Amino acid sequence: MGRVFNFGSGPATLPEPVLERARDELLDWRGTGMSVMEMSHRGAEFTGIAEKAEADFRRLLAIPAHYKVLFLQGGALAQNAFVPMNLLGGKTGADYVETGSWSRKSIGEAGKYCKVNVAASSAAIKYAAIPPREEWRLDPDAAYVHVCTNETIDGVEFHWVPDTGAVPLVADMSSHIMSRPIDVGRYGLIYAGAQKNIGPAGLTVVVVREDLLGRARPDTPAVFDYAVQAQAGWMYNTPATFGVYLAGLVFEWLEAEGGIAAIEARNVAKARMLYAEIDRTGFYRNPVRPADRSRMNVPFFLADERLNDAFLAGAKARGLAQLKGHRSVGGMRASIYNAMPVAGVAALVAYLREFEAANG
Amino acid sequence: MGRVFNFGSGPATLPEPVLERARDELLDWRGTGMSVMEMSHRGAEFTGIAEKAEADFRRLLAIPAHYKVLFLQGGALAQNAFVPMNLLGGKTGADYVETGSWSRKSIGEAGKYCKVNVAASSAAIKYAAIPPREEWRLDPDAAYVHVCTNETIDGVEFHWVPDTGAVPLVADMSSHIMSRPIDVGRYGLIYAGAQKNIGPAGLTVVVVREDLLGRARPDTPAVFDYAVQAQAGWMYNTPATFGVYLAGLVFEWLEAEGGIAAIEARNVAKARMLYAEIDRTGFYRNPVRPADRSRMNVPFFLADERLNDAFLAGAKARGLAQLKGHRSVGGMRASIYNAMPVAGVAALVAYLREFEAANG
Repeated sequence: MGRVFNFGSGPATLPEPVLERARDELLDWRGTGMSVMEMSHRGAEFTGIAEKAEADFRRLLAIPAHYKVLFLQGGALAQNAFVPMNLLGGKTGADYVETGSWSRKSIGEAGKYCKVNVAASSAAIKYAAIPPREEWRLDPDAAYVHVCTNETIDGVEFHWVPDTGAVPLVADMSSHIMSRPIDVGRYGLIYAGAQKNIGPAGLTVVVVREDLLGRARPDTPAVFDYAVQAQAGWMYNTPATFGVYLAGLVFEWLEAEGGIAAIEARNVAKARMLYAEIDRTGFYRNPVRPADRSRMNVPFFLADERLNDAFLAGAKARGLAQLKGHRSVGGMRASIYNAMPVAGVAALVAYLREFEAANG
Repeated sequence: MGRVFNFGSGPATLPEPVLERARDELLDWRGTGMSVMEMSHRGAEFTGIAEKAEADFRRLLAIPAHYKVLFLQGGALAQNAFVPMNLLGGKTGADYVETGSWSRKSIGEAGKYCKVNVAASSAAIKYAAIPPREEWRLDPDAAYVHVCTNETIDGVEFHWVPDTGAVPLVADMSSHIMSRPIDVGRYGLIYAGAQKNIGPAGLTVVVVREDLLGRARPDTPAVFDYAVQAQAGWMYNTPATFGVYLAGLVFEWLEAEGGIAAIEARNVAKARMLYAEIDRTGFYRNPVRPADRSRMNVPFFLADERLNDAFLAGAKARGLAQLKGHRSVGGMRASIYNAMPVAGVAALVAYLREFEAANG
C-alpha cells in the first residue's frame, strides 16, 4: 500500500520529504561513500551535521545564548532521574505538578532522589484539566518546579507558562516541542524525547540554562551529567548519530515550511478542525476542558464503545493508522504532530462523519 | 564516488546488503505504509521486529536461557556507571583489570560508586599486552571482576576467558562482540555499544545472568535498572527502535554469511593478512605483543612519522577511509570489523606495499 496517515503517539510519523532524503543518502552521504551511520562522530563530516542541527534547532526555537543544547540518549523517562541528579544541588526537595500519566511517572522517579512536593494535581478529575496556577502550593525552597507541558496520553496542554518566581521551571516538552514558539528564557531546563516532533526514538534533547550546570550529584553518570556533556559539546560519548542527522533533516524541513510560527498556525487549524468534529453531535466525546486541550494528542471516545473495533477496522481500511487509544485510558487517540499534514486530519474528519452517518 | 572501504573504529562500516535493505524499506516497511521509525514500539509490527532481533542475537551467540538480553540506550560509557549501580548489591568494592583506554575509563567511572581494586594493569607498558591471569590480584570479596575484552584504541584483545572463580566476570565487549564465538556461561554480564559489529550508535546490548538481577541500588534510574528492563522485555521506555531494526538486519546478514564461526574464520584471515604485511619489513610497526593482538582494531605506525599525512592522503584517494589513529595515540588504525570485506583488507595491504615501495 502507499504511505498511510499515521496518527501514532510516538514513535510518530515523520515528514515524507525527510524520509525520502534519508533514503536517497542512506548508502552514500554527499559523495563521501559512507552512510551517516558509518561516520566517526568526531570526523569533519559528522561534526558538520551535528553543528548545523544544533544551530538550526537553536534558531528555530530562538534559544538564548546562555542556554546549552545537548543531544543525549535515554529518552525523557531517563531524564526523570537525571533532572533531579543534576539540579538538586544542596536542596532536598522539588515541586512537581501532576497533570497526567507522564508527570505522574516523573513524580515516581524523582522520589528516589528527593522529597517530592506535589504542588497541584488533577488526578481527582482524571486529568481532564490543568490545575490553575493560583491553586499550586509551591515550596519556596524547592530546587525546581517540574511540569509536563503536554500530556501525550491524557491530551492536556499548557497554553500558558507558569510563573515560579526565582525557582527554576523545568518542563518535559516531549510531545509538543517545536509545535509552537516557546519563551525559552522563562524555563530553567527543557527536555524532550525526539520521537514525536524531532526525529526517531533514541534521541533526547536537553536545553539548560548555563547557571544551572555544575551542581550535579557526584555519582551522576558522566554521560548524563549535563555539565560534562556541555563541556564536551555533547560528544562525551558517541551520540545517536543517525538520530541527530534525521533531526537535522526535520529542522531543515521545518524551516522550509516557514518555521515554528507557521507550523503553529497549521497545528491550530488542524486541532480546531478535529475538535470541532468531535464536539459536533455527541457521537464522539473528548473529556478535556476546552481551554486545556492539546493541539498534538486528541483522545476521543465513541458514545457507544461497542463500536470501537468497527471504528478502528474502518479507519485502517482507509489508511488511517494507529488510532487506538493508550491501553491505560482506552478509546481512540489521534496524535497530530507537526508532520501530520492537514490532508491527514481532513481525511480523519471525513471518516468520523462517515462512520457516524453509518452508525449514529 | 562509490562506496569506500571504511576502516573507522566506530560508528563503523555496516554490511552493504543491510544498508540496501534499510534504504528499500525506509518509507514503507513491508506494505505497512510506514517507516520502522514511525511505528509504535508496542504495536504488532515493531514487536515482531524486536522479538526476532533478540531471538537471532541469542541464537547466533548461543546465549543460555538463564541470561536476559536487553537492548538499551546510552552506549557502553553509560554502562560504566550502571554496571556498579546494578551489581554491587551489598558489596563495597569491585575488581577492574586495566588493559587500555576503555578499561581505564571504566575504572574512573566505577570509582564514583565503589572502591575499585585495579587487579592488574598494563599501563606501565603502554597497554602493549594483556596482563597474564597469574599476575592479577583479585579480591575474593569483590562484587565482580570487570574486563574490556577488546581495546578499540590500543588494539589488544583477550583470546582467553579469565577464571574468576565464584566472582561474576563482567565484560565490555563493545568492539569485538559477534566477531567470534563466546562461552557466555562464563560471564555474569556482557555489555556492548552497537556501533562496531551490531548496528548504529545509540543502541547498547546487555546480556546478564538472571541471578544477578534485583540487586540494584534503590536510586538506579528505572530505565537503566536491568531488573526493571528485564521484567518489561526491555520496553520499560521507548527503545531506539530504528537501531534495533538495523541490528536485526545485521543479525540476518550474519546468519546468511554462515554465523559466528564462519565470520570468525574470515576475521582471523583478515587480521593475519594485515599483521603479516605490517610486520614484513619494519617500515610499519604494530606495538602489541603478537599473542594479544586484536583481530578487530589494528593500530600501526610508520617508522618515519613525517610520512603520515602523505600516507593518509594516498589512502583516501584510493577509497580507503578513516585510517587515522586515535588522537590519544597517533599513527594509524585499521578497524576491520565483521562488515569489512576481505577485499577491503586486501586493498589496504596492496596500498601498504605500494606506499612502502614509493617511500621505503
